Amino acid sequence: MRRLRPSLDWLLVLVPVSVALQLADGNELLIFLTSAGAILPLAGLIGRATEQLALHTGPRIGGLVNATFGNVTELVIAIFLILEDKTEIVKASLTGSILGNLLLVLGLSFLAGGLKHEEQSYNARAASIHATSLVLAVTALLMPALFALSQDGESAQQIFLEREVVSGTVSAVLIALYAAALVFTLVTHEHLFRTPSAEEHPSWSRGKAIGVLLASTAVVALEAELLVSSLEPALEDLGLSELFVGLIVIPIIGNAAEHSSAVMFALRDKVDVTLEIAIGSSTQIALFVAPALVFITFEVAAVALSTILVFMISSDGRSNWLEGAQLTGAYVIMAISFFFVEAL
Amino acid sequence: MRRLRPSLDWLLVLVPVSVALQLADGNELLIFLTSAGAILPLAGLIGRATEQLALHTGPRIGGLVNATFGNVTELVIAIFLILEDKTEIVKASLTGSILGNLLLVLGLSFLAGGLKHEEQSYNARAASIHATSLVLAVTALLMPALFALSQDGESAQQIFLEREVVSGTVSAVLIALYAAALVFTLVTHEHLFRTPSAEEHPSWSRGKAIGVLLASTAVVALEAELLVSSLEPALEDLGLSELFVGLIVIPIIGNAAEHSSAVMFALRDKVDVTLEIAIGSSTQIALFVAPALVFITFEVAAVALSTILVFMISSDGRSNWLEGAQLTGAYVIMAISFFFVEAL
Amino acid sequence: MRRLRPSLDWLLVLVPVSVALQLADGNELLIFLTSAGAILPLAGLIGRATEQLALHTGPRIGGLVNATFGNVTELVIAIFLILEDKTEIVKASLTGSILGNLLLVLGLSFLAGGLKHEEQSYNARAASIHATSLVLAVTALLMPALFALSQDGESAQQIFLEREVVSGTVSAVLIALYAAALVFTLVTHEHLFRTPSAEEHPSWSRGKAIGVLLASTAVVALEAELLVSSLEPALEDLGLSELFVGLIVIPIIGNAAEHSSAVMFALRDKVDVTLEIAIGSSTQIALFVAPALVFITFEVAAVALSTILVFMISSDGRSNWLEGAQLTGAYVIMAISFFFVEAL
Repeated sequence: MRRLRPSLDWLLVLVPVSVALQLADGNELLIFLTSAGAILPLAGLIGRATEQLALHTGPRIGGLVNATFGNVTELVIAIFLILEDKTEIVKASLTGSILGNLLLVLGLSFLAGGLKHEEQSYNARAASIHATSLVLAVTALLMPALFALSQDGESAQQIFLEREVVSGTVSAVLIALYAAALVFTLVTHEHLFRTPSAEEHPSWSRGKAIGVLLASTAVVALEAELLVSSLEPALEDLGLSELFVGLIVIPIIGNAAEHSSAVMFALRDKVDVTLEIAIGSSTQIALFVAPALVFITFEVAAVALSTILVFMISSDGRSNWLEGAQLTGAYVIMAISFFFVEAL
Repeated sequence: MRRLRPSLDWLLVLVPVSVALQLADGNELLIFLTSAGAILPLAGLIGRATEQLALHTGPRIGGLVNATFGNVTELVIAIFLILEDKTEIVKASLTGSILGNLLLVLGLSFLAGGLKHEEQSYNARAASIHATSLVLAVTALLMPALFALSQDGESAQQIFLEREVVSGTVSAVLIALYAAALVFTLVTHEHLFRTPSAEEHPSWSRGKAIGVLLASTAVVALEAELLVSSLEPALEDLGLSELFVGLIVIPIIGNAAEHSSAVMFALRDKVDVTLEIAIGSSTQIALFVAPALVFITFEVAAVALSTILVFMISSDGRSNWLEGAQLTGAYVIMAISFFFVEAL
Repeated sequence: MRRLRPSLDWLLVLVPVSVALQLADGNELLIFLTSAGAILPLAGLIGRATEQLALHTGPRIGGLVNATFGNVTELVIAIFLILEDKTEIVKASLTGSILGNLLLVLGLSFLAGGLKHEEQSYNARAASIHATSLVLAVTALLMPALFALSQDGESAQQIFLEREVVSGTVSAVLIALYAAALVFTLVTHEHLFRTPSAEEHPSWSRGKAIGVLLASTAVVALEAELLVSSLEPALEDLGLSELFVGLIVIPIIGNAAEHSSAVMFALRDKVDVTLEIAIGSSTQIALFVAPALVFITFEVAAVALSTILVFMISSDGRSNWLEGAQLTGAYVIMAISFFFVEAL
């Protein structure tokens, strides 16, 4: 297992370096780069801890744990961005995180797993439930966007109030459906999703896994703050637009944990966990966080296209390297386009 | 069978009540509510009569009969709305009827059936034919909408004439394809759609079933007129927008027949008939009625999203309570959004 | 085989006729019609030669050869159109060619094959790879279109440069993915796509087939030049808009080769080759040619709808006459709408 993943642990040295730079009022670009770099090994630790935890809990709950803890990094970054009044970047980063999970994480996992194994199979039902959840999320994202277009005659305050009500109730429906999907897969129809028991035994105790998980998350929060506070000057130095950083750069940093875990499980031919991480994480973001923000149609279109691609590729319950390449390629195409767009 | 469905027959008392109120120039809101209430048990009678008829004809033709007679209520309401010059509400109610059948009728049927049976299976081919028909309808709805966008330099009269020609020919193509699908499922490839013969025997004669069907339809027409004529003042009292009434309220009343029949068949594990009712009814509306009216892109988008959801959920030929909850949830999300939209 | 396809060879007489008319400065409409008519038997020859070649190479490479040589006609017409500065028609004809291949070629093939055989089956994996490629192409078409919407503050020259970079890199990604799909189907996972060996033996030598292929292509180029140079005056005489000619007329002439080959293989129950020709050809156009041009959203919508239809119909690996009729019907609906649109 260790052999399959080149250790990034030496990058942990960037944690004290970034903190020292910040305390010394150092160069903002350096703080940005060192804090971004420090998040990667921390994400790796989170990934390793969740893998161990998954061996204690079984693959499906393990995938849920992975998806949830993978999103903690993004959530922390989002909170610091909101505190700095950068809601446009937050919205872009949520879209980017969904795209990154659906296309890049899943694509690289299928690609890596497919280069090692000729063909990998997984539970098509689970994939289908996730894809349906994503379409529900797209519906929920699209409806308020259309709603926003049609409020000509009303006062700003009334629009604000109505939007709050719509977002709140739509979110409640989505959360109820998310809970329903968990009840379905974990309780009423659990036998449909049982995977053959792993021959592997955890090498960490449950306590150690949880401890590493929590500690890494705490340090990630610290680094996220450094990242956000140095964001603006660093962007100017790098010549990147806020939109590109929100859609591509921040999600890649924030999803590093899911990346490493998902690819790892694909290499070990446990694609069910990979799917749970990649699609499950997207579903969580889309269902819980996104309805509270009104998205622009373009972002919804990108998420909708990604959802269609994932559905087409995952509905047969099989994956291979070409499907991985195709998902990754779709991500690259979008990233190239985003790179030249100033604002939308 | 009777035990499964709480009888609404006592609501038939609203038929004379609503007529009396109308003759006495009574309160418009009361006329609206009593006529709406009176349609429900009539729809129940229509449902029961078509069930009986279905036992005489076999499930597939039975489903077709259900779909057709379920649409009669909506057709009658639409005719009275057009006579009152409320074409905007008619258009909204046709969209709403498609959404209601695809999401609410199918969703509640899958939910009810799925709570009683662990998993229900049906003919995936039939579902696929319906889904393809719906995409054709979406194409037909979308093309004239785009066409309407591009007629800058022409006179109003010329635009009107051309639109008539486009709508007419597109409708002719769709009707021909609908007939082709019937020939396919009932004649050339009928053996693919044969379902195991029902053990059940009809308790009504064919004549009684047809008689109840026709009589109920006639009374529904009477109540529909009362409903439409009291609509405007009732809306003001209730504080509902015309759009919401067209998209949500009228279709729910108009689809009550399909609702009760579809859920009933799902509970009795005859999901093939449920699908024929719910999707077949949508297909009929979309193919026959809709191309004559130019829809706004938003309504086409809602229908397209619903079609994608139904395709994703029905392509495996299996249903369960979660899929029912997901379809119903999508409907609730749309209804919430529509509630706050004044006009589109 | 000859009996199945009425020979159009006598139309070859139009080759000298069209050339003579051009040399004599004859009526432009006559030149247009005779050159269009001359392309049909030439396309038939190309089709017959590729069929023979396909018997030498096996069905999958044969399909690729068919798709590529079928596109040569369109490519030649496009080149002459570009030389005459008619880029709008070129763009329309590329969209129209994708639509024609996906809906008309595939639809008529399924229809013809389905009337002869009750049900035809093919490799669903190959169809799925093509459908995914098409979604990638739609993504690639959509992204620059959105990109074009968002360049308010920049100079025309800068926009031009950025667009070149985006188009170039997106094209490179798509070409790499196309190559990856070829490697997958022909090398790494070739055994998944093996079809039962044809009992049939080629009646032409490999050399004769290649010779006829090249000679026919050369004469097609000559006729294409006549067609393009007489296009504008002929349109005025016929009362057709440039958009309609680009979207419908030119692609039907240009795809005649694929039409005859694809239908022929469907009649001989080799639907795998039919799919390779129809979808493979669309994929080639979409991947190689299209990203270099910025398309309007409407054209992307039409291609996206067609892709969804093809995916829905082909994902089960079976075809029948109804599916053929539905695809053809979708094409007719689009063509009717296009007929009345002056410009988009």
